[in-house]
Formats: sequence, C-alpha cells, structure tokens
Amino acid sequence: MIIIVKPEAKEERVQDLIHWIESQDLRTHISTGEYTTIIGVIGDTTKLDDELICGLDIVKGVKRVSEPYKSANRKFHPLDSVIEVGAQKQKVGHGSFALIAGPCSVESEAQIISIAKSVKAAGATMLRGGAFKPRTSPYDFQGLKADGIELLLEAKRETGLPIVTEIMNANHLPLFEEVDVIQVGARNMQNFELLKELGRIQKPILIKRGLANTLKELLMSAEYIMAGGNENIILCERGVRTFETATRNTLDLSAVPVLHELTHLPVIVDPSHATGVARYVKPMAMAAAACGADGLIIEVHNDPPRALCDGAQSLRPEEFEQVARAVETVRSAVCQLS
Amino acid sequence: MIIIVKPEAKEERVQDLIHWIESQDLRTHISTGEYTTIIGVIGDTTKLDDELICGLDIVKGVKRVSEPYKSANRKFHPLDSVIEVGAQKQKVGHGSFALIAGPCSVESEAQIISIAKSVKAAGATMLRGGAFKPRTSPYDFQGLKADGIELLLEAKRETGLPIVTEIMNANHLPLFEEVDVIQVGARNMQNFELLKELGRIQKPILIKRGLANTLKELLMSAEYIMAGGNENIILCERGVRTFETATRNTLDLSAVPVLHELTHLPVIVDPSHATGVARYVKPMAMAAAACGADGLIIEVHNDPPRALCDGAQSLRPEEFEQVARAVETVRSAVCQLS
Amino acid sequence: MIIIVKPEAKEERVQDLIHWIESQDLRTHISTGEYTTIIGVIGDTTKLDDELICGLDIVKGVKRVSEPYKSANRKFHPLDSVIEVGAQKQKVGHGSFALIAGPCSVESEAQIISIAKSVKAAGATMLRGGAFKPRTSPYDFQGLKADGIELLLEAKRETGLPIVTEIMNANHLPLFEEVDVIQVGARNMQNFELLKELGRIQKPILIKRGLANTLKELLMSAEYIMAGGNENIILCERGVRTFETATRNTLDLSAVPVLHELTHLPVIVDPSHATGVARYVKPMAMAAAACGADGLIIEVHNDPPRALCDGAQSLRPEEFEQVARAVETVRSAVCQLS
Amino acid sequence: MIIIVKPEAKEERVQDLIHWIESQDLRTHISTGEYTTIIGVIGDTTKLDDELICGLDIVKGVKRVSEPYKSANRKFHPLDSVIEVGAQKQKVGHGSFALIAGPCSVESEAQIISIAKSVKAAGATMLRGGAFKPRTSPYDFQGLKADGIELLLEAKRETGLPIVTEIMNANHLPLFEEVDVIQVGARNMQNFELLKELGRIQKPILIKRGLANTLKELLMSAEYIMAGGNENIILCERGVRTFETATRNTLDLSAVPVLHELTHLPVIVDPSHATGVARYVKPMAMAAAACGADGLIIEVHNDPPRALCDGAQSLRPEEFEQVARAVETVRSAVCQLS
Repeated sequence: MIIIVKPEAKEERVQDLIHWIESQDLRTHISTGEYTTIIGVIGDTTKLDDELICGLDIVKGVKRVSEPYKSANRKFHPLDSVIEVGAQKQKVGHGSFALIAGPCSVESEAQIISIAKSVKAAGATMLRGGAFKPRTSPYDFQGLKADGIELLLEAKRETGLPIVTEIMNANHLPLFEEVDVIQVGARNMQNFELLKELGRIQKPILIKRGLANTLKELLMSAEYIMAGGNENIILCERGVRTFETATRNTLDLSAVPVLHELTHLPVIVDPSHATGVARYVKPMAMAAAACGADGLIIEVHNDPPRALCDGAQSLRPEEFEQVARAVETVRSAVCQLS
Repeated sequence: MIIIVKPEAKEERVQDLIHWIESQDLRTHISTGEYTTIIGVIGDTTKLDDELICGLDIVKGVKRVSEPYKSANRKFHPLDSVIEVGAQKQKVGHGSFALIAGPCSVESEAQIISIAKSVKAAGATMLRGGAFKPRTSPYDFQGLKADGIELLLEAKRETGLPIVTEIMNANHLPLFEEVDVIQVGARNMQNFELLKELGRIQKPILIKRGLANTLKELLMSAEYIMAGGNENIILCERGVRTFETATRNTLDLSAVPVLHELTHLPVIVDPSHATGVARYVKPMAMAAAACGADGLIIEVHNDPPRALCDGAQSLRPEEFEQVARAVETVRSAVCQLS
Repeated sequence: MIIIVKPEAKEERVQDLIHWIESQDLRTHISTGEYTTIIGVIGDTTKLDDELICGLDIVKGVKRVSEPYKSANRKFHPLDSVIEVGAQKQKVGHGSFALIAGPCSVESEAQIISIAKSVKAAGATMLRGGAFKPRTSPYDFQGLKADGIELLLEAKRETGLPIVTEIMNANHLPLFEEVDVIQVGARNMQNFELLKELGRIQKPILIKRGLANTLKELLMSAEYIMAGGNENIILCERGVRTFETATRNTLDLSAVPVLHELTHLPVIVDPSHATGVARYVKPMAMAAAACGADGLIIEVHNDPPRALCDGAQSLRPEEFEQVARAVETVRSAVCQLS
Repeated sequence: MIIIVKPEAKEERVQDLIHWIESQDLRTHISTGEYTTIIGVIGDTTKLDDELICGLDIVKGVKRVSEPYKSANRKFHPLDSVIEVGAQKQKVGHGSFALIAGPCSVESEAQIISIAKSVKAAGATMLRGGAFKPRTSPYDFQGLKADGIELLLEAKRETGLPIVTEIMNANHLPLFEEVDVIQVGARNMQNFELLKELGRIQKPILIKRGLANTLKELLMSAEYIMAGGNENIILCERGVRTFETATRNTLDLSAVPVLHELTHLPVIVDPSHATGVARYVKPMAMAAAACGADGLIIEVHNDPPRALCDGAQSLRPEEFEQVARAVETVRSAVCQLS
C-alpha cells in the first residue's frame, strides 16, 4: 500500500501515522520527494482500511499495490480451479462447461420432472430451480420451500442431473443436505453472516454478483466463504443496475475476462436475469461462451406465460435446445483457437 | 394495472391472458382502440408481477396504476406516522427530529461512554454504535458483537440515550432485547428472511436504502416488515452508487420529498456513510434538514485517525456540536415557514 | 400513447387536457374504468412530450405505445439496412461485417501507413484514425487536425482501405470531403446542431452511444440525421458509465440484440474504448461477433507505450491479427447456425 | 504523479518508461522498495495521460498527486471568484446569491414579459429562457431561436433583469451579443469545440454538469474555457443519471461542498431539471441553499400544463414566490452561522 502524504502535513502527525501503521505489524518505507512524502506499507495490508487512511486530513491519497483478497487471488494460485459437483464429480472450470437450466420456481412434480428431462436431452449438465424465492414484494409467491427441494431431489433421481438451488437463510441448511450446488443470490452477495456459514461446509457455492457490486467486492464475498475453509466457489455475473431500461439489468460480460485474470475460480453467466427478456438470452449466451465463460445458467419453463414468476425471461424447452446448440457451436469454434 | 396489447396479437392469446388474470380474483376492463387493445385490471393487483406480464410476447407494455405496497402507502394512511422509541417514548416523525450520533464501532467502555456523553451534551437524541459490523473483507474488524451491545447498554444507563445498533442475523435477536432501535444496513435491505423476522417483533426498525435500490424497493422492504405486523419503521437514505468518485456514494436528498409523498413513515438521512468524508457531513446535514428530513444519523468518534473503521467520515465531538447547532438553526428557520 | 388520469382529477381539467391534445391534430379515445380514466391518443404522437404530460397534476402516468423515432424504426423498414462505404461500395450490415482498425491518433505518415498496411493484411476492411481528438483536458494532445486527415488520405491511397475519422465541428466538414465514414463521438451524440448538419450530406455516419445514453436516445440521435435526409447510419456501442472500475466503462453487449430488434441500422461494437484495456479487447470482440454485431472498431498501434493517447487500450498489429482471426472463427461458426 | 511499477517488470522496460517521461520535460524520483518500485513524476504532469500509463503492462497503478486543472483550481486561487454579470455588474459568488428564473422556452412576448415581471417581483436576480432548445427528438419544438433572443432582450429592457440563455452552436455567437450569461447545457459540457470558442470572449458562461460526468470532468470543461482566457465561469449541478426512476435524474448536492473545496468558481444548482417534478423543486432549492450553493436556476411558467416543453417541472409564478421566500429564509439562517 502506498500512502501519499499532503505537502502541508506536519511532521509530527506523519510520525503518528507511521507509528500507528507499524503498531499493526507492518513495516513502512518512507520516500521524501520535493513535493510529497510517500509511505510504502509492507506486509499483510489486507487488514488496513483504505478509506480510513484516505480520510485522514494529512493524507492526499492511497493506492493499494496488492489486492485485499488472498484465497481467491490468482497470484497465489495461478492454475484454474476446477470445482467438482455432485456424486459424479462433474467438473466446472478449466475447460469444463456447466450448462445449468431449469425453471425460476419449482411448481409441481410434473413441471420440474418434465423440464428436467427436456433440458437434459438438450444438453444441460445441471438442473436449477427455485425453492426459496427472494421476491421484492412480500405479497409475491415465495416458493414451495422445503417441498420445492423435495421435488428437485425427485427430478435428480429421475434424470441424474445435479441440482442447484438458492439459499436465503443459514438456518435452512439442513434442508440442503442433498442439494449439489447452493446458490447465493445477488441480493445476498453481501449477507456476510450467510457467507460465513457457507464457509463451514464443503459443498460447491454458486455466488451471484450483486446489482451494484464491483468485481472486487464479488471476490471479497467469495473470500468470506473461502476464509472459512470452503474453496468450492463458482462466480456468476448476472447484470448490474444502470439507467438503461431496454433490458432489466446491464449484463457486464467484461466480468468474464476481468475475473479470469484476477481469480482462479470459474465464472459463469446468467443471461436470463441480466436481460429479463427471453429473446435476448440466446445472443447473450453465445456472447458469454465466446468470451470464455465457464458456464451458463438459463431459465427454462414449459409454459412461460403461466409461470408463477419471471416468465418473461424464461425460454421454452425447444428454445433452450436451440440455445444449447448455438452455445456448443460457439464453444467448439473457440476451443479450436487455443 | 393497465396492460397494452400488441396490435398483431392473436385474439385467442389475448383471451388466454384475460382468463388467467381473472382466475386470480381480479376483474378486467377491455378497451379496444384503433391500434391497440388495452386491458385494465381491477382489484388487488399487488399479486401480479409486472415483469412476467411485460414479457409475454403479445404484450407491448404494462403500467401500474396503484403501488404494490399497502401498509407503507400514504394513500391509505394520510397522516405522518410517529415512531416512539425507548422507554421514554421519544418521538420520531411529524415534526419530531431524531439526531442520532455515535461511533462506527463500539471499541471500549471508555470510548462509548465518553462519546455518548459528548453527543448528548451537543443535542443528540439517540446513541448509535456498531456491535456487529458488516465489512466487505473477512479480514477487517467485525465488531465486538455481544460485548459491543453490552457496552452500548452501559452507555444508555449512564446517559439515558436510547441506542440504535445494527443486526445482521435474526439468530442474534435475543441479544437485542434492550436495544431501542434495530438497524438494518444497506447490504441487508433485501435480506427478506431477516425482514420477516423483524416483522414479528414490535421494536422500531431503522432500515437503510440499499446502494442500488430504488425508493419503491425501499418501501417494499418496509412493507415486508409491516406485513408481519411491525409498523414501527424509520427509513434512511444513505447514498447510492454512481460513477462519481469525489464522494464514496451519491447522497440522493430528493429521496426525502419523494418518500414523504409516497409514505407516512419518517425519513432520516445518513450524510456520514453517503459522502464518506467528514468535512462534507455538515453541509449535507444542513441540506437534509432544509428539505424536511425527520432526522440524521451521524458518525462521531473521539479519535478519528485511530478509529478501527470508517474514521474518514467521523466527526470529532466538537465538530459534531457545530453540526448539531447548524442543523438546529436550519430547522428553526424552516419551521417558521410552515 | 396511453395517459392514465388520477382518480381524483376534476372532470373540467381532464377535458382541458383532451382539448389540448386534440388541438395538436391528434385523436383521443377515452375509457372510463371504475378507478381510473384512460386517454388513448391516436395519431402521430412523436410530437407529444411524455414528461410534460406526466408532470401534469391530474396525470398518474403515461405509457408510449409507439416509439418516438420513425426513419430508424424497424417497424416501418423491416429489412436490414445495408450501408455502402467508399468508392468500392463496401457493404456494412445484413451479414456484411465491418472490421475497422487503426490508431487512436494519426501521428505521422510512417505510422499511419505502416499500421494501415498491417491491419489490412490482418483482414481489416477500413482504417480508423483520429485527426480531431476530443480530449477531457485542454492540455492534452488534440490531434493533427487537417494534417491528420491528409495523412489518412495518403494511407487510403496506399492501401485502398476506406477511412473513418471523427468530426467535432460542423465547420470542419469541407476537410472531410474525401473521408469515407464520418464518426460522431460519444460526447457529441447529443450535439444536435452537428447531427443536423450531418443530415444534409450523404456520407455514411458512424454514431457512438453516449456514456450515459439509453439505446432509445441513440436511435433518436440517428433520427436527427435521418430526418435531415441522410439515412446512411452505422450505430456503435462503446460502453456506458457505471460504478465498476476494473474496466474504463461497462460494455453493454445486450445493445446488439436490442438495437437489431428496434432498428434496421447496422450495429458495431468498440471493445477498445469500452474496456480501456488491451488484453480485454480480444474476448470482448469475440463476444460481440457471437451476439450478432455487424462490425468492430478496434484500436491498433505499432508502439502502444509511446502512443500519444489511449495506448493502454491499443493492440499491437500482431495482436490485432489474432483478434481478427478469432472474430472470423466465431463469425463462421455463428453463420452456420442461421 | 506516482507510478507503481509491477514487481515482475524488467529493468530495461522500466528505464524506457523513465526516459519517455523525462523526454517530456518532467523529472522523476525513483524509490525502490522490497516489493515495488515507485516512480514519482515531478513537474507539470497535466500533460501526462493517466490511462495511457496505467495501461502499460509494466505498470501496476497510477495515482495523481496534483489535479489536472490549473486555472479552476482553488489551490492556485484560494479566494472565491466573484463573477460580474451584465451592465450593472451583478455579483455571483462569495456570498452573492444568484436567483435565476424563467420559462424553459421563450414562447411569445406576452409570456416572457409577464414571467419576467413576476419573477422579478418575487426576488429573481436574472431571467432565464430557452431560445435554442436541445431536444432529444428532432420532431420536438426546437425553440424560437433568434426571435427568442429578441424577446428575451425585450424582457430585459422592460425589467432590467440580466438574461441567461443557452448556446448550442458557436456560429450563433453573434446573436448572443447582448445576452448577459451564456449557458452551456449538460449535453454540450464536453463539446470541446464550443468551449474553446467561449474561451475567446469575456462574457460569463454558466456551464452545466453532464448527465454522467464527474465533478473533475466538469472542472476540466471549465478549464477549457479558462485556458482560452475567459475566467468568468459559473458551474451548475443539475442531476446525474442513475437507476432511480422517481425523479428524472438524481440531484447530487454533495457537488456543492466538493466543488467549493476544489475550485474558487461559484456553484449553482438546478432543481427543476434534476428532479423533473415541480413539487420537489422547493425542498431541493432549500437544501441547495442550506449546503452553500451560490445560486439557483429554476423553471417558472405562467401556464405549466400548456408550456411547449418541460411543463412538468415548471412552477407557477406564485409557487416560485414561495420558493424564493423559503430559500431566503434558509440563507439568512445559514449566514448567521458563519
């Protein structure tokens, strides 16, 4: 960390700051220039708070030289992580592509099994489905909860597809015993209490970027889980909030190469929630595959207009089949290149 | 709700939509124009999902005529709500101003009692202090937790100031028994599981706007708590994320008049977190008072450069005293007007 | 246009509004429901200002049924437009891909000719280069101006590549006589006076989306040029401003399918300015090709670290060659699909 | 400027960078730490482009120590600038408050004179009115142009109020001969060609912040004008674009104290365009006054529902009179404090 001291700062105050830093087991390296004094801080600076230091009146600015995340940092783990999912140890990352599909909400046995079979036939490698649903309104359908998980497990038994479903409360963890991948939704990306609990288990966690969170914050949230001991993390870009209204959110596909550079964790993309519009899912899924995403999570419903939630963004199974084929075509082409 | 049907929509599909709406205990009113058909939906449309309907391929657009929140809606509760805090039933709202001050984190008995005394002397009506701290990094100081709450209660006994502190996990509720106002932080604004639990108690809840949440979403989150039976809600504007970097977030003071129009709940402002810079707190606090805020929540620390967190935005007690006086001056001037 | 009137509106005021609308050569269709009155407005509503009407105190809301742009609207021009560039009538759109490459700034004859030759060899179809440079700071290099255009024309003579360069002032138009495509930069997207002047010529215009402009506003800016008589427009997505700092801007690739739905004009993508980082250009270029972009505009420099501007985002010619090949691979794969 | 070099950078490449910097008449100061090398750059670094350097592959990060603006910088001009307007040399800044009011568009002699008289009676110090109107749609009313300026001058003769009106094209400058303050609208904030022309005259320029521009960029645009020799600049905050939809834009009042810190130029606020809603203008005007704005620019119309543009945000004269009184009350209170 580099701290730039204001030219007018009193020497005494600068010494106070240096002592305070050194009292935290860090070393300093002072460089006095014509116009500025620079304090280089050496050691584990993850414990220093940039904003605190930046706010001191003798400080002109602060620049981090090293990232505040460690376990998730590619610098200390240069090779791609490969996450293994379910009993079959299905791989995600480093060339293994996850194609996760299914309905926004689990609604009935018939629904989830029918969708599971059709997405499997189309090439999906995992089944998603909401049992606990985070809804903006308390009056909206909140999911079938425990029953929804039961139905997902039923679909897993029928098709062999590992299942992915969202958790909203650490107290529900016992219900997720047989779930293969636990999803943390965008709204819970910084629910640190939940993240800490998920650090205590070993199941893969799919964590979605919050609607106004930076990629570094997403990595810090992954770090919360990893710091607890669970390194099985899949990151997911799902759009951020901007002023644009033609799509529900703005899908930030640059997240894929940026995250691949910063971290060894696999990165998947959710074009359904990002755009909120079924007919934009195919082009965005293809784009995600082209820029190197390690997977996709796509909403599929057998009857979009009657779906209990998010019908607007769901594909029909036959549409998903086309998306799967298009994505496969792009991936094969891209693989040739490298 | 008004649904605008695409001109090219097949009559049969339109009828399907109408039947589906009516199957949900709603009535419809069809108006067929030269170029468009409009379906007016009458009844409790809070259960309809705009985006679902908007995504149907026969639908051109959807426009809500009534808001999806009820308990928080001023339309059904025209008079300002007054929230009563603590044993002394201190009032907030409808002309009663809350001046909440205290450190970001509770650090020690000496610290919290000294700050409590000085902010009380300067005119603060409540003491704030973080015991459970939401930190972006797992390696940052996470608060004194239960011990922090104990120290706050100690400060309350010493000064009589009601205390405000943040909850991050509903499982911690027993520790908040004697806390006067429970704060829900910006990152938990859509932690719906936590909101539901807070709906089951009767203690006042101070809920902060999320960094990328609309004012309507803030009201929906209040509605989650109110739908559970707890109507003692104080709303808090604390800045939203934008591209501007001169301040940590962008304080959206228009939130004050907008929320006062939409809801009967009191609205307070947090200029410390919004700007992230101590020297901008005073002008923003004055501005908040001038546009009708029902209170302020301000960070005060006896030793900002050594505070364990957020020192940059904390005022020294003597600076807070000036802010309190300036705010009082603005408030008296404004009161004259009405 | 659908106007939803507030339930409490006085009949007399509603009649005033209706008369005012009808005085503008529009017809109205009133539908009185139980709780609301809806005014449907029929005719050329492009002349009505949504915000004006929305702000009337008797109005609850306004919903446009038709778009405020006509010439750019796919509804009235269902087939893709194909723009013809230069003497060779090089095509852009409807399957013809534009690969535009070149330096941020033209610096010297040797530089521009060397780059022109190498990008042509790598497959570029046009040469870009800045002669007039919009720079945030008045102290930054502002381009070689007229001399820069001369050098571009020299490079065109040498290589046969049509040239694309930015205009900042309509008074400079005489200098652009032999330029093949005139670019309007993001900062001038709503320089309406410039757009009007460009509507009076017949040369293709490449117009970039502003940093905080919606896709509909981009179409309205295209409409300004088209309304003047010049229908040779190429739209360009180049990233929008968000809170994310890992990339300079956030590339909004959903713009490609959204614009393809709303308009018949070709849509190209600028991954260099959007990301601001050379090593993210390749994955984003591939993603753009995968989601159906009609072209790319990419910065290439023979000596990025010494480039006078924007070196950070420029590729070396050999890197560009790899990007061109990767894009071609993705495009061939995608073409197979349709 | 501080350049942080990557630990793995080859010494030879670092030397190249140092030579290149020194070749631009700058001196360097190298500080080699255990993990990093830091290059301090001394001299007039306004000519260095942060992004260029930041993008070099041997560079980890760049931190500016001094701002890239000079004439506008408070550091070199510690006292508040006072701008003198019109023949009467009406002052703006350093305690002199500008209350600018008038219609969005000049429509007729009767209209502008009637409004001018009523806003003058209510305490306005200048008259605003649009003659050249920047409209998103080419089909919207574009203003009365030269005739509009004539009518404004007529109103000035009748009332003595100096007039403020927007310029969109430097070629129109001769028409602005008798205009007292020339406004540069938000969409033209980075129309650098126009800014350069305005630097050649001596008339006061009121420059509005762009919808997605940082405060530093606003200062750089002021710097464009000042670098040309015209130091009579008034800055104007008018809201930025965010995801919030309850107001047209998000008024960023922190801009007032931030700009007052960074620059000596006066800062005024436009609550009408920022909120887009007439009933939010009063609270936001009061807030602006409370946080130290040097003036306000407010839309007033004698007949908002029939105004040709922006009626939604215009106040009636009697409403403006209340706003003026409320602002005066807040200002008197605030003046007492200092």
